Amino acid sequence: MNFHKEPDLLYFDLLDLELILNCNHEDCHGFYPTETVFETDIIMNFENLEEDFPIDKIYLNNASVSIMPSSSINNMKDFLLTYDKIGPDSTESEQFIKELWIKTRKTISELIKCKSDEIVLTQSTTDGINIVANGLKFETDSNVVIRGKNHEHHANYFPWLRLAKKIDLRNLQIDQNGSFSITNLHKLVNEKTKLVALSHGLYNTGQILPVGEIGEFLKTKNIPYFLDTAQTVGCMGDFDFPKTNCDFMAFNGSKWLCGPMGTGVFYCKRNSSDLLDPIGIGGESAIQHDDDLVFMDLPEKFQTGFRNYVGLVGMESSIRYLLDIGLVNIRNHIIKLSNVFRDEISKIPGVTIFGPDDESCRTSIISFEIKDLKPEYVVKRLEEKEIIIAKREILEKQVLRISPHLFNSELQIMKTVEELKKL
Amino acid sequence: MNFHKEPDLLYFDLLDLELILNCNHEDCHGFYPTETVFETDIIMNFENLEEDFPIDKIYLNNASVSIMPSSSINNMKDFLLTYDKIGPDSTESEQFIKELWIKTRKTISELIKCKSDEIVLTQSTTDGINIVANGLKFETDSNVVIRGKNHEHHANYFPWLRLAKKIDLRNLQIDQNGSFSITNLHKLVNEKTKLVALSHGLYNTGQILPVGEIGEFLKTKNIPYFLDTAQTVGCMGDFDFPKTNCDFMAFNGSKWLCGPMGTGVFYCKRNSSDLLDPIGIGGESAIQHDDDLVFMDLPEKFQTGFRNYVGLVGMESSIRYLLDIGLVNIRNHIIKLSNVFRDEISKIPGVTIFGPDDESCRTSIISFEIKDLKPEYVVKRLEEKEIIIAKREILEKQVLRISPHLFNSELQIMKTVEELKKL
Repeated sequence: MNFHKEPDLLYFDLLDLELILNCNHEDCHGFYPTETVFETDIIMNFENLEEDFPIDKIYLNNASVSIMPSSSINNMKDFLLTYDKIGPDSTESEQFIKELWIKTRKTISELIKCKSDEIVLTQSTTDGINIVANGLKFETDSNVVIRGKNHEHHANYFPWLRLAKKIDLRNLQIDQNGSFSITNLHKLVNEKTKLVALSHGLYNTGQILPVGEIGEFLKTKNIPYFLDTAQTVGCMGDFDFPKTNCDFMAFNGSKWLCGPMGTGVFYCKRNSSDLLDPIGIGGESAIQHDDDLVFMDLPEKFQTGFRNYVGLVGMESSIRYLLDIGLVNIRNHIIKLSNVFRDEISKIPGVTIFGPDDESCRTSIISFEIKDLKPEYVVKRLEEKEIIIAKREILEKQVLRISPHLFNSELQIMKTVEELKKL
Repeated sequence: MNFHKEPDLLYFDLLDLELILNCNHEDCHGFYPTETVFETDIIMNFENLEEDFPIDKIYLNNASVSIMPSSSINNMKDFLLTYDKIGPDSTESEQFIKELWIKTRKTISELIKCKSDEIVLTQSTTDGINIVANGLKFETDSNVVIRGKNHEHHANYFPWLRLAKKIDLRNLQIDQNGSFSITNLHKLVNEKTKLVALSHGLYNTGQILPVGEIGEFLKTKNIPYFLDTAQTVGCMGDFDFPKTNCDFMAFNGSKWLCGPMGTGVFYCKRNSSDLLDPIGIGGESAIQHDDDLVFMDLPEKFQTGFRNYVGLVGMESSIRYLLDIGLVNIRNHIIKLSNVFRDEISKIPGVTIFGPDDESCRTSIISFEIKDLKPEYVVKRLEEKEIIIAKREILEKQVLRISPHLFNSELQIMKTVEELKKL
């Protein structure tokens, strides 16, 4: 199924639903295109996507690493062959790589709705977080505000914890889902606050934090704001990330974006670039003026040493694939799957579900536990049935986690529930 | 031509040379295996290698970015498919990735002759240099000794130049090829010297520095020693890098190692790890102890955020390809090619050659200029003839540079010379 060539085949009207279900015309892939639709009305036939993803198992661990569409893998190989064929460092390849950069930045800026030069390519979310943690200028009485300590993913906790030796690290107390009261935030920040660092979506409970509301408040106080968006970019629908007023943001290409491992993005708001000194420096990030160095402008300032072109190709291809399907469609599909899963497992005796009930406050992540069954045992037993789910932690508690993505189906969810019931 | 399956086909005795040249037996690929050979006696039939490298042009810019063997590109695609097929984050893939790490470390340790846990995977040479420049602990009266300032590659100059604001940056005066007198080094270092940072092979003149002799001296003084080996690993024959007594070393996978762009290695001597604090920190590089962080041991300590598995596959495959052919064979082949080029262009009126005459003191890089012809003009004209060479600089002087690698042939060198004569 190639969405790039026949985009209008993706769209059909809600009113045509019955017609569609009865339509067996091969060219229509089982659904019926119409001429005018609004994005919120678009519905996809997600069943057909399974063909595009090279896995026969039921893979429900996309919040960790997702599967790449076959087309992205093919594009990566084609890139490597072409790059070598034209001569990797030649005048011809210079143009070839320049076009790759432009295309990649254009696609990412469409994804998160930022300016093209605000995108710094990295190898991971971790890299982006470290650019901020190491790049800020602190005084001894500075403070940084974080959330929940060990409730947070280590990648977005350790770099701040390390700072605790030289500055005041302030922690927002959390509720059972990992959220916190804005009043508490108001109390913790002051004129010495150099940063508030949060995750947009939580890796363990699936809670989405009200990052827009927080951003509004921090803007009035002129306090820099960092968001780890690894768990939201690609699965949040039509979300305007810079509208949160965040100054910095980090995510990677291998979770919800279905790109290759080892790719990531650091977003730096154009006007916030001066808040950070770059950690790494090299031939691409600075120029020499007499015996002094002058940093280049964004994005080169923070991007020295990056050369993973084949990774860019994979990430760009996968993002384009998602954008062609429509981020709203994906969000609707996966939240539906997680709701089905939630409803079904709530009927199993001994199951406790974590995270918010309200679907608008969570990603497709569902965390749960089964009384008297150790999570590693459940993961192992399901893997024997070719179903992949994850074991994670909510503070000290070990839990099970599913995180369905676009290529998963309701049938797969029901099979998973059936296997859980048998344990 | 598959060297992995028939390694003994690579070997034949010097004495059999005439026999070989007359042998047309298909299985022998035109040469004759013998049972016992010494590495220095091994000769390869390099002509056949052209098939393994997907380029039709004459590519002589390998000191910048080399070409990948087709087998490495295929292995990368196979990896991506398999990784997705088994489920990227699953119990099965854990084992799969573990084996990839072991294999990659084994191959790299065979290449540079170090211990497996002394290898930190990075995305570039630049990354490795920045790990050292940002990781060392300085006092205000500390000094660092470098060589030649702008004669050095920016990647191995800018990170040290940046330090000049807080420490004493000392510069070794150089001769016309970029080398320096050991006596001068003796004078520059003292008990406040925190590091001597050098390049092993110079990107512009091809000069190989006497890094072993320098290392012997620095060892007696207990002065830490960093080497940028981007221009020597893979093209220096059977060189024992840790025998130089260097503490740290950085190189990448995309120059002489024929691996993908965006891959690199930072070598850290096991006992020198304590000299550096890691810049980046994340879930893989530290553990939490109460409210404090404890760094992991080598190599994890410096490797947080690295996840470019497909890059590892490409780099490992390419290094294995080179090792199977034999690093001594490669060195002999490419130095022969560069000697032919040197001899031939020296006959062209108006050509000036830079770099040492003695072949044992240089890599296969040959830099030169042609009177009254601008380097960019020459590069452009040759590219029109499908010959790729580079423009580089020796201090303020713009020069031309060729850097033949294993897949290049004497015929290609002669064609290049012919085209240069026509200009």
